[in-house]
Formats: sequence, C-alpha cells, structure tokens
Amino acid sequence: MILREKPGTAELLFALRGSVLPHIAPQLALVGVLAVAAMLWDHNVMPLPHLSATPFAVFGVALSLFLGFRNNAAYDRWWEARKLWGGLLADSRSLAREADLFLDDTEIRMQLLRSMRDFLHLHRSALRGLPLPAGEGPDVKLDAMNRLLAEARHNGRLDGFGARTLSARLSGIALAQAGCERIRATPLPYVYSLLVFRTSWLYCLLLPLALVEPAGWLTPVFALIVAYTFFGLAEVTEELAHPFGNTANALPLDAICRLAEIGLAPHLGEAAPPPLQPVNFRLD
Amino acid sequence: MILREKPGTAELLFALRGSVLPHIAPQLALVGVLAVAAMLWDHNVMPLPHLSATPFAVFGVALSLFLGFRNNAAYDRWWEARKLWGGLLADSRSLAREADLFLDDTEIRMQLLRSMRDFLHLHRSALRGLPLPAGEGPDVKLDAMNRLLAEARHNGRLDGFGARTLSARLSGIALAQAGCERIRATPLPYVYSLLVFRTSWLYCLLLPLALVEPAGWLTPVFALIVAYTFFGLAEVTEELAHPFGNTANALPLDAICRLAEIGLAPHLGEAAPPPLQPVNFRLD
Amino acid sequence: MILREKPGTAELLFALRGSVLPHIAPQLALVGVLAVAAMLWDHNVMPLPHLSATPFAVFGVALSLFLGFRNNAAYDRWWEARKLWGGLLADSRSLAREADLFLDDTEIRMQLLRSMRDFLHLHRSALRGLPLPAGEGPDVKLDAMNRLLAEARHNGRLDGFGARTLSARLSGIALAQAGCERIRATPLPYVYSLLVFRTSWLYCLLLPLALVEPAGWLTPVFALIVAYTFFGLAEVTEELAHPFGNTANALPLDAICRLAEIGLAPHLGEAAPPPLQPVNFRLD
Amino acid sequence: MILREKPGTAELLFALRGSVLPHIAPQLALVGVLAVAAMLWDHNVMPLPHLSATPFAVFGVALSLFLGFRNNAAYDRWWEARKLWGGLLADSRSLAREADLFLDDTEIRMQLLRSMRDFLHLHRSALRGLPLPAGEGPDVKLDAMNRLLAEARHNGRLDGFGARTLSARLSGIALAQAGCERIRATPLPYVYSLLVFRTSWLYCLLLPLALVEPAGWLTPVFALIVAYTFFGLAEVTEELAHPFGNTANALPLDAICRLAEIGLAPHLGEAAPPPLQPVNFRLD
Amino acid sequence: MILREKPGTAELLFALRGSVLPHIAPQLALVGVLAVAAMLWDHNVMPLPHLSATPFAVFGVALSLFLGFRNNAAYDRWWEARKLWGGLLADSRSLAREADLFLDDTEIRMQLLRSMRDFLHLHRSALRGLPLPAGEGPDVKLDAMNRLLAEARHNGRLDGFGARTLSARLSGIALAQAGCERIRATPLPYVYSLLVFRTSWLYCLLLPLALVEPAGWLTPVFALIVAYTFFGLAEVTEELAHPFGNTANALPLDAICRLAEIGLAPHLGEAAPPPLQPVNFRLD
Repeated sequence: MILREKPGTAELLFALRGSVLPHIAPQLALVGVLAVAAMLWDHNVMPLPHLSATPFAVFGVALSLFLGFRNNAAYDRWWEARKLWGGLLADSRSLAREADLFLDDTEIRMQLLRSMRDFLHLHRSALRGLPLPAGEGPDVKLDAMNRLLAEARHNGRLDGFGARTLSARLSGIALAQAGCERIRATPLPYVYSLLVFRTSWLYCLLLPLALVEPAGWLTPVFALIVAYTFFGLAEVTEELAHPFGNTANALPLDAICRLAEIGLAPHLGEAAPPPLQPVNFRLD
Repeated sequence: MILREKPGTAELLFALRGSVLPHIAPQLALVGVLAVAAMLWDHNVMPLPHLSATPFAVFGVALSLFLGFRNNAAYDRWWEARKLWGGLLADSRSLAREADLFLDDTEIRMQLLRSMRDFLHLHRSALRGLPLPAGEGPDVKLDAMNRLLAEARHNGRLDGFGARTLSARLSGIALAQAGCERIRATPLPYVYSLLVFRTSWLYCLLLPLALVEPAGWLTPVFALIVAYTFFGLAEVTEELAHPFGNTANALPLDAICRLAEIGLAPHLGEAAPPPLQPVNFRLD
Repeated sequence: MILREKPGTAELLFALRGSVLPHIAPQLALVGVLAVAAMLWDHNVMPLPHLSATPFAVFGVALSLFLGFRNNAAYDRWWEARKLWGGLLADSRSLAREADLFLDDTEIRMQLLRSMRDFLHLHRSALRGLPLPAGEGPDVKLDAMNRLLAEARHNGRLDGFGARTLSARLSGIALAQAGCERIRATPLPYVYSLLVFRTSWLYCLLLPLALVEPAGWLTPVFALIVAYTFFGLAEVTEELAHPFGNTANALPLDAICRLAEIGLAPHLGEAAPPPLQPVNFRLD
Repeated sequence: MILREKPGTAELLFALRGSVLPHIAPQLALVGVLAVAAMLWDHNVMPLPHLSATPFAVFGVALSLFLGFRNNAAYDRWWEARKLWGGLLADSRSLAREADLFLDDTEIRMQLLRSMRDFLHLHRSALRGLPLPAGEGPDVKLDAMNRLLAEARHNGRLDGFGARTLSARLSGIALAQAGCERIRATPLPYVYSLLVFRTSWLYCLLLPLALVEPAGWLTPVFALIVAYTFFGLAEVTEELAHPFGNTANALPLDAICRLAEIGLAPHLGEAAPPPLQPVNFRLD
Repeated sequence: MILREKPGTAELLFALRGSVLPHIAPQLALVGVLAVAAMLWDHNVMPLPHLSATPFAVFGVALSLFLGFRNNAAYDRWWEARKLWGGLLADSRSLAREADLFLDDTEIRMQLLRSMRDFLHLHRSALRGLPLPAGEGPDVKLDAMNRLLAEARHNGRLDGFGARTLSARLSGIALAQAGCERIRATPLPYVYSLLVFRTSWLYCLLLPLALVEPAGWLTPVFALIVAYTFFGLAEVTEELAHPFGNTANALPLDAICRLAEIGLAPHLGEAAPPPLQPVNFRLD
C-alpha cells in the first residue's frame, strides 16, 4: 500500500511511485505512435475517413459503464478484504482478553495466544501464495486452538460460559478466514476483463479517426489522455481486485500482522515489537 | 468459473474460452449483415433517411441505464451466492470444531459431520436442479442432524451451552440455505430482460441510419462494436444472474464442497481428498 | 412473479405476459398520435420551431438520473422484501428444529408450530390488505406463541437455554415482520413519482420538436421508443416498489408460505402438501 | 409523510400537496423572468453571445453527479432512519414478550413497559426538537428501565437468562437511539449544499445564452423545466436529509409511536388505541 | 463539522466558512489567468487550434466517473467513521447499564466506567495523531478494563452471565476501535488521487481551446465554473476521506466524547457537563 499525502505540484508532475504510468507505458506508446501515424497519413498521404463524434459518444458511455462497474467491484473487494483483516486484528485482541477472563490456566492461555499469532502468519502466507510448513496451515492451527479449548473444558478449566465465548470467537475467525479465501479464490468474472480490454483497445485505436479533424495536431495528445484514463483505470482495477497480491496497491498484511503481535505481546508477557514503517512510501 | 490471469495480447485477440463471443455470434452476424445491407442500399439504390445523433444519444443513455442496473443486480446476486457458500464452508469447519468442544460422544459426532457433508452435496444438487435420492433433501438432512442433537441432549451427552451453540450453527446453515434457494427461485424480474433485449435490438437495428453518413464504410464496424458491447453485457448478466447454473460463469460448487470435505476429514479421522483443479481454465 | 426463461426471438416480438406494454399502451398511443400530428402540421401547415439537441440532452441526463434512482430504490425494496420472507422461511424451519431440541412436551410443540403456520398466513394477508379474522392478527399470534413458551417455562418444561433460544427466534420473526410492515407502510416518497411522471411527460411531448428535422418521418418511431423506455421503466418501478401487491411482479407470498408448510409438516406429523406451481408463467 | 396512490392525470397536472412546486416557486419565477428578459433583449436590443451546447453538456454532467450523489445520500439517511424506527417498533413488541417470558413480577413488568412507551415519546420529542419535561429524556428513561431490571435481579425475580435477554434488548434500543441521534446531529456536509446550490444557480442563469438560438421563443419554457428538475431535486434532497423534521416528507413518528402503543396495550391490560390516519394525504 | 442551515441567498453569494473556495483559490486563479491569456492570444496574436466538443465530452464522462467514484468512497468512509463513533457512544451507555445490572461491587463499577471514559479520549487522541501519555493507549485501557472484570470474576463478584455480557461489550468496543484505526491507517488508494488530479488539470488547461470559439469572451467564466466544480469536488473528497483530521469537515470527536461523558455521569454519581456547542458554525 502506498502511503503519501495529497499530491502537491511536484508529485502531480513527476510522481511515478504509486502511479500506474509505468505499468501502462507500452500501451500508451502504441496508442501514441498509431495516432501520430494516422495524423501524418491523413495530412500527407491520403485522407482517412473522418468520423463524427456520434459513434464515439455512445461507445464511450458504454465503456465508462464497464470501467465504472469493474472499478467499483474491485474497490469493494479490496475494502472488504481490509475490513476482514481489521476484524481479525480486533479478534486477536478480544481473544486475548476473553482468554484472560475465562481461562484460568496460564499455560493453556499462552499456547492459545501463540497459536493465534501463528494462525495469522499462516493465513497471510496462504493468501499470498507463499509456501507453508509441511502439515501446517491456518485450518490446522485453528483446529489446534480448538483442541486446547476442548481439553481445558474436559479438565474443568473452562466452564460453559467460557466455552461459548471462546468458541464463538474461533468461529468468527474462521468466518473471516473463509471470507479472505473467497476473495482470493474467486476473481472478478474473467469475461469482464475481456470485455473491458477489448473495448478499450478498439476505442483508442479508432479514436484518431474522430479526432483528426476537430483536434488537428493535438490528436495524439488527446488520444494519449483518453488512453491514460481508460488503461490507467483498468490497470488500477486489476491491482485492487487482487488485494492479497504483491503489487503496490495490495493490502499491507505484514503490517497488520505486526499490529496483532503488538496487541498480543502484553498478554504473552513479551515486549511488543515496533510497528512496521513504510519504506519509500510503501507499506507491505 | 473461469480462472485465467489478466488477459495478455494473445488472449485479447483470440480468447474464446470465457468470452461471450460464441454466445452472441448469431446476433452479431444479423446486425452485421443488416448494417452492410443498409450501407449498400443507401449508396447504390436509394438514400435512406440519415438520422442525426440526437435521438441515439438520448436512447443510448437510457439503454446504458438499464444495462448498468441489470448488470449490477446480477453481479450482486452472483457475489451474494458466493458469500453464502463461503459462509457454509466456514459453518462446516466451525460445526466440526464446536462438535469437538461440546459433544463428548464420538459416534454422534461422526454421524453429525457425515450428515453435514451429505447436506452440502444435497444442497448443491438441489440448487443445480440435479435429481435427489428419494426421500432425501437438504432439509431432511438438517432435520436428521437436529434429531442427533436432541437425542444427545436427552441422553445427557449435550449440555445447555452445547445445545445453544450447535443449534445456532444449524439455524445459521438453514439461513444460508434459504438464501441460496431465494436466489435460485427468484430470478431478476422478467420485465427487465424484455425491456433490455427489446431496446438493444431496436437500437442496433436503427443505428446504421445514424452511422451511414458520419462513418461511411466503417458503418458495419461500429454497428458490430456497439452490438458487441450491448449484447455481450446482456449475455454476461444473464449468466451471472443464475449463479447456480451450468454456465462457464456459474459458481464452482463442486470445488467448494470439496474444500468443505477437506476441512471435515481430520475431524472424521479420514484422509483429506485433494482440492479440485480447473480443467481447461474452468472450475466447476 | 413471472417465471420465464431468457426471452427468445418469439417472446421478444410478441410476449405480453410479464411485459409492461399493456400497462402503458394509453400513454404510448397519446405520444404517438401527438408525434404524428406534430410531424404532419410541420410538413403541411406551418413549420414548428425546430429545436436542437442541446436542451434535450441536458434534460435527458437529469431524467435518467431520476429514473435510475427510483428504479434502484424500488428494486432494493422488492429484494429486501424477498430477503425478509426468505428469512421467515428459514425462521419457521429453525423454530421447528429448536422446538424439537428444547421443548420436551409434544403438545406444546405442536401448538407452537401450528401457530407459526397461522402467523405466516396472517402476516401475508395483512401485507396484501386481505381481511383478517376478527381479533386475529400476526401480532396476536406471536403473543400466543410467546404465552405458550411462558407457560412451558413456568411449568418447568422449558429451561433457560431453551427460553433464550426460542425467545430470540420469536424476536427475529418480529423483526422481519416489522421490516415487511415498514416496506408496506412507507412508500417511496410521493414527490419522486410526481417529478418523474411530470418530467417524462414534458420530455415526450416536446421531443417531436427536436426530432422532426433530423428524424423526418421516423419521428413517431423514435418518440414511441423513447416513451416506451421511460414510461416502461417508470411503470416497472411502480410495481416493484409495492412488493406485496397483486401485480405480476409482486412477490409470490402464497408459494413461500407453502414452502414453510412443507418444512413444518414432518415436525407436525403431517404429510407435506405439494409446492405451488406457476400458472401461465405466473406464481402468486 | 405523504400517502397517495400513483399519480393519475389530474394529480399530474394539479397536485401541489406533496409536490415541491410551492417551495421552489420563487426560484422558478426568477429564472423565468431572467430567461424572458434575455430573450427579449437578444431579439430587440442587442444580440447576446450565443453559446454552444458544449460547455453546458460538460457542466450538466458534473451537476448531475452532485445532485445524484446528494439525492442518494439523503434518501439513504431517510430510509435508515425509517429502518431504525421500524427496529424500535419490533424492539418494543419483543420487549413486552420477553418480559412476559422472563419477568414473573407483574408490577415490575408493567412499569417496564410503561417506561418503554414513555421512552419512545421522549425519543421522538428529542429528535423533533420539542421541549422535554425537566429532568426527563430518553436516556433517563432507559436508565430507569435498567434500574428496574437490576432491582428484580437482586431480588431474585430475574434469573441470569432473563437478565441477558432483557439487557441485550435495552442495548439494542440504545443502539437504535444513538443511530437516530447520529442522523439528526450530523447533517450532510454543508459544503455539498453550497456546491449544489451555487452550481445550479450558475447553470440556470447562464442557460438562456445557450437556448436562445436553438429554442427561440421556447427558451423560457426549457429554462423553467431544467430549473424545475434541478431545484426540485435539490429541495427534495434537503427535506429527505432531515427525516425527523416537520416537512411533508419527514417520517411519521407519531404514527409509529402509536403502533408501538397498540402493540404494548394487551401486555399492559389496556385497550389498544386506534392507529393514526393520514389527514389530507399526510401522516405525521 | 460545519453546522449551518440550508444556504439562503446571502450564504449562496458570500459564505466562505464551510466552503471549499478558500482551499482551491490558487488553482482557480491559475486556470482563470490561463484562460484569459488563451483568449487574448487567440484574438490578438495568432489563432489557437479551435477544438470541437467531441474529445472533451468523452474525457468529461471519464473524469466524472473518477470524481464520482472517489466522492462516494470518501463519503462512505466519513459516514462509516461516524457510525462507528455513534456505536461507541451507545456502547458507553450500554456498558454503564450492564455494569449496573451485573456488577454488584460499586468500586469496580466506578473504575470500569472511568476507564471507559479514558479509553474514549485516548482513542480520539490516537485517531487525531495527538501525543498519548507514556505507557497509555486505547488498547492498554481496554486491557485494564478487562482485568477489572477478570478480578471481579475470580472474586465471585461477576457471574458467568455478567462475564459474557460485559466481555461481549468490550469486544464490540474493540471492533469499533479497529474499524476507526482501519479508516485512519488505510487511505483511499493514492493512485486515484494522482489519476483525478492529473486528469482534472489536463482538462481545465485544455478546455479554453474548446471554449474560445463557442463561448467567446465568456471563456474564462466557463473555465472557472468547470474548474470550481472539479477541483471543489476533489478537495471536498480529500477532506471527507480523512474523517479524523482537523479540517472543517472532519468529525466532531470532541463533541461525541462529551456526549459519552454526559451519559456516564449519572452512573458515576457526577454532575453531567454541558454538551459542546458549535463555535462560528463549527463543532470539533
């Protein structure tokens, strides 16, 4: 995630970090070259058909519709993923407090909280597609936490009230976990990507035919601006739609896990580690 | 569900798998033929009335409104269905953990979890319209699970805390089940389909009259692009609005059920089956 | 509710069942007659002022805004109402299961479930504005169910866990009931209807002045298409905004109540009635 | 709240009750006079600059964006407020049932339900800005209800299950109360009102310069229609954004409180009062 | 937060308090100067290329899409933050009532409520980025409240029902706290700001080329109006996206904390402080 203030004049002109420009530079170059070629051909070789604005206006409204929908859907995925991790952070803090309140046995409590910490890291790794230790996984860890509770209950160290409270906490964690897995495993329907990219290309490639008459030598400028907005938005959407990826706009799962560690530390009798800081405006 | 990466150049040009093109080819062919015929007739036989952009602009905004609304509503149905199944997956895992915690009797616990597994498959079959075994059904299975709990409670093997916890889990499952049935049994109002398809056809058939003057011999190209965006979106919408169907964009219920089986296996003392993999980019 | 497949060619051309055409035929006829009159007067008697597209484009965007907002709000009402009834269906099934689990006395349990069945029918009748039996009503029935629980509790046949479970179920049902009453008693603000209908009429009546020059003898065709989309959407909205009415797009409350009866039957020791089927594509 | 059927022909032409026309008449008059003056000046004195549609189209899209956003936000406030009061209605009915189930002492129960009734009226008065009795307020009343429960619990007349149930009900009521106070105390950001009203005025005052050429003597008609839609929508928004006010579109809190009284009456052994009826189509 | 009535004529013309005008004055000045320069150069020195409306219409729709999306997302953040604080207010009142009901020991109760009051102020300070006392923080305070409960439970002064109730309250507070931290720590993706500001600048700087022919000497007026709407909306969005900041549109956390103090006072046996009042229309 990029953490920068509202862009000032300098950033507006030059900021590349956090910008989509580097990702769409090849597409822009191609659109620019073709627009220049169309303009030169039209002036010097043979006039191209000069299209009116009509077809592009209709086309543009439809394309905006796709782009807008896809952008909203992708942002919703990103923000829902962030909410789920915010919920997991609150869950880890509440688990520690509920364990203090309902679990008398210090040893079991420590094991439970250490397992919670492990769970968060395993969950993060699974979402990021990192390799997991053999026989380990977020589910295995939650099962282990549940076994701790079952043992404590059978040994009379956890009463019914505590069992209900802590078991509800575990199932809340499992729900957030399944929510993250849902977002990871179910991308936006592929068909939208095809529709959007195909239509954006058609639009940008045909646009010079409509611009060459009214815009003259500014044709490539306008074609580039339009391509910048359309491809830029499509690219941003692609990144936000995968909130657990490794792109600049992905969620800072490492930093959130660290916050959870900070919250668990006093309950484990440990010193809290420092929060992660953004490096070069980027927090991972 | 189609699982592919962001489309590269090759996919943009040639991808048919996951594309709507094959589904709307007949409509596109008809629009293309009529556009060519209108253009030729206008050039060679007798000029057609050349319409200005005005009526189409207004018309196009209204049509975009319908298409956009229907698309949003269909996507919401699809995503809500996915959320409900993600919730069922979490429910099956939490049921196993709660049974471990609150149900001492191993035999009852095994029966309960096996019934849960059967329930998911019966629920999936019912949503997909597959034949159910005689006298079986998701509701029958949930009733059977509840009877297991009632017996355990009367035999003193399930205390009040456990009864509340497990009965709340069952009613959560029943709520998700009713949610899926709601989506299956209540399609998007038919009247929207009529409005959208009728208006799209009128638009595409009349469009050549507005294009023939400004677009010249590019008339069929533009008519086809507009038809592609409008019919393509209408077709995608139709598929997403039925998330439990057998289309390429339907939800991968088999794969989700398999995930639930994997989560239940250790609690049943069984080896976990492997997760389902996409075949030819498609996961069912 | 209309239950039809995706419209094929024949339905696109001729379907009236589920279409709004019959409802807006008078308005369309009036718009058509006036458009023809304007065109003839302009050609033969005296030229009318020929308006440019400008005012209509602005006007059309504003009108689309109203129509789109109202349509979304109406669909949200309809879908929320459907969700509430889907929740009531799940509530009736869970009530039966919870009664099996927590209420030992068969007679009280039967009375409770029969009252639930009566409640659903009374609730449906109240929403539809049908006459209720004297001294009966959904609230009276819920009070009666609560009295059954209170008696069982005082007689020691319902423990604290069961009382909490069943009382939470009743209050969930009361919440869904109040939600349905809210939708029924609080229509979309009347002022939106006035704004939309007044603006639609002004638009359609003035439109021929903008069309007569660019569209020529196609003026009435376009005026009719625009009127079809605007009045059609306004009419659909009106129906969906009243999900408990008797229109073709109202919710099939009879069919949902029947599903609840089917789910309650085995718990009452009765044979399940068959589900309701659509008659002439319509389910009530 | 205005309760009228779908507007028929007569209402479309003449309805003022529930219309925004009376509220925006001065603005419309000013716009009309200025449009006539601009037209006359242009014809008879000296031609004004005749603007093309371009700037107004762009401007109009931006203005629609503001108006649409503000309208959605205001309607969401209004509908959320209605949902909160619908929830309070269900809460009052469920409180009565839960008291019957868990509170044996009739006297305490009566006091509790009478306090609930008082709370609703005090809450309504506070939201409407009416004077409250000295030392009274919705919070004071909820505290009093809680004290009743605390006394019953200490006297052994309310067990743990009942205490949890009734205390959860009270905190649900407190949440709905805080939600209403939030809507009342936090208006839509003022800056939006300024942006919308300033932009609407600029638009309507400059519009005749774009209309005078294409629309001729219809200039004032179009200017008035556009002003009607823009100021009308802004005015409706203003009313809906304050759902607890005294305008025609405010929520009928009196009628909802009466419904709660009707539901509480049988539990208090009283005769139920009749529901409030709309007077001159208006329910308060 | 600015608290003003619906703007009247005087405010429309002159209000600066709560307006974005002061924040965007430099941008507007630059746009105005450039528009005047372009107009003068075009008239007196050498004609600039006169662009048609086409490219700007397409461009404008895309820009509106970005602005609209960003505005919605920012308002949602602002309103969600307000809901979370409204929930915290209700939580503090309900905590006081639940403590009265379930915690017999007056001293522990007083400590708990005083800690709640401290928590709110610490939470507010952390969100606003104010310095916190050494070793203090909202989490530390919640841990201390939990320890109070754990001690009371171990001393037999809090039974299982009370422990579940109060512990659920604490975890609800922790969830709202994590929600606020989420909004504070996760800004809107930076890439949107870049896209919006870059596109707005390009649009406003190129616009005079399209206006100079149709708008003549009104070119700077229209350029300024368009810049006012675009930069104004972008600026408002920036403020609302940071609801815990110190801007005029930030949330009045001081006033909400004061309301919580007023609600806690009677439970602490203290006199309630007066509510905070807006100063110069502004509430902090």
